[in-house]
Amino acid sequence: MLTPMQSTFLNGQRIARLATADKAGVPQIVPVCYVVEGASVYIALDAKPKRVAPLRLKRVRNIAQNAEVSLLVDRYDEDWSQLGWVRLDGRAELIEQGPEHADALRLLRQRYRQYESMLPDGAVVIAVRVHRVASWGDLSATL
Amino acid sequence: MLTPMQSTFLNGQRIARLATADKAGVPQIVPVCYVVEGASVYIALDAKPKRVAPLRLKRVRNIAQNAEVSLLVDRYDEDWSQLGWVRLDGRAELIEQGPEHADALRLLRQRYRQYESMLPDGAVVIAVRVHRVASWGDLSATL
Repeated sequence: MLTPMQSTFLNGQRIARLATADKAGVPQIVPVCYVVEGASVYIALDAKPKRVAPLRLKRVRNIAQNAEVSLLVDRYDEDWSQLGWVRLDGRAELIEQGPEHADALRLLRQRYRQYESMLPDGAVVIAVRVHRVASWGDLSATL
Repeated sequence: MLTPMQSTFLNGQRIARLATADKAGVPQIVPVCYVVEGASVYIALDAKPKRVAPLRLKRVRNIAQNAEVSLLVDRYDEDWSQLGWVRLDGRAELIEQGPEHADALRLLRQRYRQYESMLPDGAVVIAVRVHRVASWGDLSATL
């Protein structure tokens, strides 16, 4: 589904932005940590401080009303010839237990060592089933 | 509308992400350059290479169907105590001429010197009329 360059770009960036929308079509964006595995992207409702309980978060209530989501990973640079992004559109579902849930938490902890202390085993996972990939600009690695 | 710290954070960051949604509520995100002025945020349909003409862009077609948008400016850091974001939700309109249009282009060119060669006088501007501000985390300046 992803080209090698898209895949490398997604793995090389650390933060994505997730857009959800409620049933009236009002969108909302949040920054998220993520991991891509096959045709899914996993995002945890982690233990970073939040105003409300995980399942009452607006992103979760939106997904319950409207599963369509858009996830963007981009790179900014003052040299605009270096700009690039990959967007993954798909449908989101919540996973609370089972083998896929355990795998997602394991992959997230591997990718973000910060999660060693901030990702409880019971954390709910948002799985985005990607049905469309778009990209733009320069996706080559820069170090 | 903005606290001094939110305002400083927004002015200090260089890139935002804009979520729009079509009439069916399917969201889409794109990275955007932006400038905040009063209760509006201005974004230009600039001359960066695009697949289609500016007014045929999905973000523009979405706004024509559904003016509700969400704009996020965030900061990532591997030290998660430094994470922060400001989100501006509002309604978008397109401005193609007039004094506000000219002011928006002037402000964008001041903020992004790259626009000196990439922002024609006829560029269409998306004006987001912000009706809600949310923020999270550490918004203090880091240099």
